[in-house]
Amino acid sequence: MSARLVGVGVGPGDPDLVTVKGVRVLAEADVVFVPVMALDVPGRAEATVRAHVTHDRVRRVVFALDDRGGVTPRRESAWAAAGSAVADAFAAGAGTVAFATIGDPNVYSTFSYLADTVAEAVPGLVVETVPGITAMQDLAARSGSVLCEGTESLALLPLTAGIAAYEEALDAFDTVVAYKGGRHLPAVRAVLEARGRLEGAVFGAALGLPDEDVRPLTEVPADAEAPYLSTVIAPPARGTRGGRL
Amino acid sequence: MSARLVGVGVGPGDPDLVTVKGVRVLAEADVVFVPVMALDVPGRAEATVRAHVTHDRVRRVVFALDDRGGVTPRRESAWAAAGSAVADAFAAGAGTVAFATIGDPNVYSTFSYLADTVAEAVPGLVVETVPGITAMQDLAARSGSVLCEGTESLALLPLTAGIAAYEEALDAFDTVVAYKGGRHLPAVRAVLEARGRLEGAVFGAALGLPDEDVRPLTEVPADAEAPYLSTVIAPPARGTRGGRL
Repeated sequence: MSARLVGVGVGPGDPDLVTVKGVRVLAEADVVFVPVMALDVPGRAEATVRAHVTHDRVRRVVFALDDRGGVTPRRESAWAAAGSAVADAFAAGAGTVAFATIGDPNVYSTFSYLADTVAEAVPGLVVETVPGITAMQDLAARSGSVLCEGTESLALLPLTAGIAAYEEALDAFDTVVAYKGGRHLPAVRAVLEARGRLEGAVFGAALGLPDEDVRPLTEVPADAEAPYLSTVIAPPARGTRGGRL
Repeated sequence: MSARLVGVGVGPGDPDLVTVKGVRVLAEADVVFVPVMALDVPGRAEATVRAHVTHDRVRRVVFALDDRGGVTPRRESAWAAAGSAVADAFAAGAGTVAFATIGDPNVYSTFSYLADTVAEAVPGLVVETVPGITAMQDLAARSGSVLCEGTESLALLPLTAGIAAYEEALDAFDTVVAYKGGRHLPAVRAVLEARGRLEGAVFGAALGLPDEDVRPLTEVPADAEAPYLSTVIAPPARGTRGGRL
């Protein structure tokens, strides 16, 4: 029997934002792995998965999701342990294993690292992904923002790449979306204000969760930090209907 | 009764890529409008909608989707007629009207123009959107491409903005995704080859449809044009696992 590992994007937090295909893959998989910060703490992907999957097929693996130091020994060791857990599931007879990731498995996800690790241990492994709604898209919908229209360009980057990269993106692109913006929020706000682009910018965290926080960036205190998984959308000034077509 | 207009992203073409929320909104709406090129030709959004919705609630409105000339009289007139049709549905008693768009209603969609038009005619109109999987995400999944990882940046732009804008994006960003690339495909290929970035680039059209075409860009003939709604993903060269974290 072939071994099939499917990375399923489950969206930012609202279980209703999983796709029909994602729900089906989660329902049919022999085992569904979810990444958590610690084995005794449910993760954001897990909460969404449990809305769709029989609980006894869900298993936690620890990922150092909030590690900001690059490829640390803690991260390497977490990937290795998670890869072993998935390989063990195949060895125990699983045909299809799903791995749930928040957002989309091909957008700032650690699924590709996990898949590389598992492929080394499981000969003939077939790897697939199911796309998921990203935080950028969910925040656009929840805040009534249009991400891009007509000939506009869109830039997406994490603030872990540095505030200078963010400034360069603002200079060259129409809409700029920043991920992982939490502790950089005061700097982001200052940079946008200096460019006259604070108007229309929106901030979002914990999208679709009980503690959801969606606001115009002007309503976020200038010195406030925010959770690691925060998103800021800065759209361009727009004129007439379809003016950018 | 309040009038509620919901833009529902139905993904690129595969009906399974609609979200659970999208399916529910389509199922509960009093009327579901779908944009078509001509009243006697079913559109791509319509094919997806009909997989989820009772047929007698689906109505076509003509959008000049492939008009490349900006805000032409033909486009203005199509938006006005579509806006009137939606306003008429509310006047006839509809409480919730859904408007299905391929991809995501906040990413290069004409939904925002339609909503502006309807809002002028229907006092107190509430406008919402439901995010949908974009072609970029679907092509990444179908081609086994990772859009971005770690600190990488992503640029998305339509080739209707010109090949020079595409070149600038390639110079400044890690992954560059081009939409509406069909007739510009030979130029895109040449530009990527000159920069040593043809390797790893993927082309996609008609995603999730019977005539789906997903290929490494190296396998597309150098002088071939493609459909208007084509997508090209050009990822950066990547080294070790997690090397860009």
